[in-house]
Amino acid sequence: MMKALHFDGNNLKLSEVPIPKPREGEALVKVKYSGICNTDLEILKGYMDFKGIIGHEFVGIVVQSPQPEWQDKMVVGEINISCGKCEYCSQGLTRHCPDRSVLGIQGKQGVMAEYVTLPLRNLHVIPDAVKPQHALFTEPLAAACEIFEQIQMRSDYRVLLIGEGKLGQLIARVTKLYTSNLVVLGKHRQKLDLLRKLGINTVQSDDFKNGSGNFHVVIEATGSWHGWELALQAVRPRGFIILKSTYAGEHKFNLVPLVIHEITILGSRCGPFPLALQLLAKKKVLVHDLITASLPFSDWDLAFDKASRHDSLKIIMKH
Amino acid sequence: MMKALHFDGNNLKLSEVPIPKPREGEALVKVKYSGICNTDLEILKGYMDFKGIIGHEFVGIVVQSPQPEWQDKMVVGEINISCGKCEYCSQGLTRHCPDRSVLGIQGKQGVMAEYVTLPLRNLHVIPDAVKPQHALFTEPLAAACEIFEQIQMRSDYRVLLIGEGKLGQLIARVTKLYTSNLVVLGKHRQKLDLLRKLGINTVQSDDFKNGSGNFHVVIEATGSWHGWELALQAVRPRGFIILKSTYAGEHKFNLVPLVIHEITILGSRCGPFPLALQLLAKKKVLVHDLITASLPFSDWDLAFDKASRHDSLKIIMKH
Repeated sequence: MMKALHFDGNNLKLSEVPIPKPREGEALVKVKYSGICNTDLEILKGYMDFKGIIGHEFVGIVVQSPQPEWQDKMVVGEINISCGKCEYCSQGLTRHCPDRSVLGIQGKQGVMAEYVTLPLRNLHVIPDAVKPQHALFTEPLAAACEIFEQIQMRSDYRVLLIGEGKLGQLIARVTKLYTSNLVVLGKHRQKLDLLRKLGINTVQSDDFKNGSGNFHVVIEATGSWHGWELALQAVRPRGFIILKSTYAGEHKFNLVPLVIHEITILGSRCGPFPLALQLLAKKKVLVHDLITASLPFSDWDLAFDKASRHDSLKIIMKH
Repeated sequence: MMKALHFDGNNLKLSEVPIPKPREGEALVKVKYSGICNTDLEILKGYMDFKGIIGHEFVGIVVQSPQPEWQDKMVVGEINISCGKCEYCSQGLTRHCPDRSVLGIQGKQGVMAEYVTLPLRNLHVIPDAVKPQHALFTEPLAAACEIFEQIQMRSDYRVLLIGEGKLGQLIARVTKLYTSNLVVLGKHRQKLDLLRKLGINTVQSDDFKNGSGNFHVVIEATGSWHGWELALQAVRPRGFIILKSTYAGEHKFNLVPLVIHEITILGSRCGPFPLALQLLAKKKVLVHDLITASLPFSDWDLAFDKASRHDSLKIIMKH
């Protein structure tokens, strides 16, 4: 048996559950660290109707593997578990496999536990140059990188990033690698200060008045409907809005401005792990200043409490 | 004085108004034909809060011009009147000039009148091979062509067009030039029959059950919210939804599926007139079967009545 954080649809609690048995092609991984993502907080509010062991950001050690070379490796893991056979998988679009499950989000037990199973093809060995606590950022950093797989960023584009939270911080740091024409709009002075220290232009929401229709690219990463409304105001005709937020709920919305101004909306989700690990290994993206607290797994309730505070960035649990 | 169809915000009526005076660089055009577009019908419901002479689809003869070579030419005209000086205009994006007016839609008196003024740079001479009544389709046909200026259509894409009305008919005919993998979904058997005669696959809405997540490209041209909902169901992960409809009103909507499936939404409005005229001249797009009725301008009330009937396609007024 093992300890795991189980969400029953109403409450999250630490439970004793059986250690999962790896299926064919899967490794058993002992979790060393897990991170709390906004998606976890949304799941607790009902997003995706997920019930089970939550969590998808992790660093662990392979303790059982069908291929012996993986044994004892320190790994991170891609969260989409695909069928490997369908049209999408055969085109390399495994993250869009319609039969996929998603670690701790959809049809697959997550990582806030002592052990987790994952297909070997989902695992990536952490380079020596990357500290395990920093490797925990691989999944959201890959999601940040995804934007630049989808859009051809031009150096003359003016880019607005709305949101300076966990994901916004990573997107800002990746975007800065592509353009210096970046402004980050956020609410929290302390979080914006972290970006200013890296030479990134920031604006506090209250001071943002003249962004109307000015930006070629607007990246929405607030996790709230308000961010979408701001994005619609800020984007230039023929511009791009990149949607990175996932949150529960429907909102009222008029499609006509998208047509009149020929706006392109790009939904953007998970991204390439190898690129994210490379950026971490080469210190092109720094993440050490994004860790608000590192707590023992047994203090999970305190960890979730901290994670839901607006002034928090990443909360890490040490398993 | 001249007769013109004036909308006061509540009612449309034939009024006596002064003949417009051309400004610098503008021609005075005697309107020969005008067409009723769905946008005109939406304006009568409050779209764009437009008040004034409505109408933007026209064919006319230049009767006064600052450049004598335009005199007596049979012309069509682009509907966006741009400033010619701003960032957009200097980049060739005149249709997105923030200071633009739009013929019969925004800040510029329309064509359902005896005369209209337009800048010479908006005018295009109708090739001899194109009948005037067919040239009336230039503006919406250009809007149909715009899709293929915005998206790189691949021959292996499965394309669904939702809407078999006036604009949908033209989009279907243009799309067929790019791919044979096209299905048109519509309500009205007679309208779908016109497309079937051209060798285009069609499905009646009631028979459409298994489109879920199957199409690389979905073009929404119904002019209704229901079309958008169908588009969201039919589009494939990583697929494209092209929005061509403009209509008044807000609707409830959840953005999350766009993010999860990394959908691209492309707003698409006006398009290239020269290409549209070329397609008409070379008979690559036929439009003769799209004219439901041609009535004298004096029968405008009957014309609008016919245009608002669901079984109608293009209603032409002869001035």
